[in-house]
Amino acid sequence: MTFASTNQKKFDEVKSILALRIAVDFAQAELVEVQSDSLEEIAREKAKSAYARVGKPVIVEDDGLYIDSLKGFPGQYSSFVFKTLGNAGILKLLEGLGRQASFRSIIAYYDGKDLHTFEGTVNGAIATRAAQGGWGYDPIFIPEGAGVTFAELANNKNDYSHRKRALDKFAEWFTRRD
Amino acid sequence: MTFASTNQKKFDEVKSILALRIAVDFAQAELVEVQSDSLEEIAREKAKSAYARVGKPVIVEDDGLYIDSLKGFPGQYSSFVFKTLGNAGILKLLEGLGRQASFRSIIAYYDGKDLHTFEGTVNGAIATRAAQGGWGYDPIFIPEGAGVTFAELANNKNDYSHRKRALDKFAEWFTRRD
Repeated sequence: MTFASTNQKKFDEVKSILALRIAVDFAQAELVEVQSDSLEEIAREKAKSAYARVGKPVIVEDDGLYIDSLKGFPGQYSSFVFKTLGNAGILKLLEGLGRQASFRSIIAYYDGKDLHTFEGTVNGAIATRAAQGGWGYDPIFIPEGAGVTFAELANNKNDYSHRKRALDKFAEWFTRRD
Repeated sequence: MTFASTNQKKFDEVKSILALRIAVDFAQAELVEVQSDSLEEIAREKAKSAYARVGKPVIVEDDGLYIDSLKGFPGQYSSFVFKTLGNAGILKLLEGLGRQASFRSIIAYYDGKDLHTFEGTVNGAIATRAAQGGWGYDPIFIPEGAGVTFAELANNKNDYSHRKRALDKFAEWFTRRD
């Protein structure tokens, strides 16, 4: 199985989550992304574009942070917003506003014939300041029940991770279908 | 000529700018948008998608507000950011930061054979509070040399407008090519 993404850190997580179940290699690639309100549609198109590139069964991920008081911002544009505003910008925007948020991951699998998607979600809140460590929004996202951010959870991030939840569904489907 | 867009207000401007030169009708349509760093690429793909929809020569526009101190945010995602954060969010983000910005418009023309793009830019700054009237980012964008926002310029907006500048280039090319 190949995981296609621009993001090496995402691949490291995917590989570690699937480790005992499915062997995964990495294709670092810029993939075509459509602008859409639907993470699932973005992931499906990305999977097709990845398959066209690597020519063998692939999985891709699209994920987004949805902040309730900001009408779902940054949502499907989380990656662009992280590169421009960063966590500091999100914290500034949330001054005086509600902090409820959720993180959603869609894993899309395509082998040239079958196209399947798997979703994982985790509810939580945005911290009032950024923690040390982690990557992306990990320093400011506190999953429900954890009491600390993804960044502070470090190796225990996977007890809560939206990505882990989506990959578990994928792995269950993939290992049973043969 | 058909102008395809989801945005009626954009069409009203386009029609009025081209009025004495080219007759334009409106196709209100959701068009496929790719996620790209390049406004031009987005506009080109949108023009092809619009032509496939309406089956006759079309123009489409993609525009973006680029704020220097926010690394170009909201840029190519200006429409999504307006719907979620609005002008209030932009003003909050800019507290204590530089206010230089530019507005860029790309007009893309496609007739099933020829694909051409035309660019217009206006430099300016983000106001410290939103003015009354206007639409989109007009209440907070002050074009260089105007001293007031696009919203306050009202009928004189076209003396500075990025959209007007792109459309003028298009009109000149289009009316001369026959």
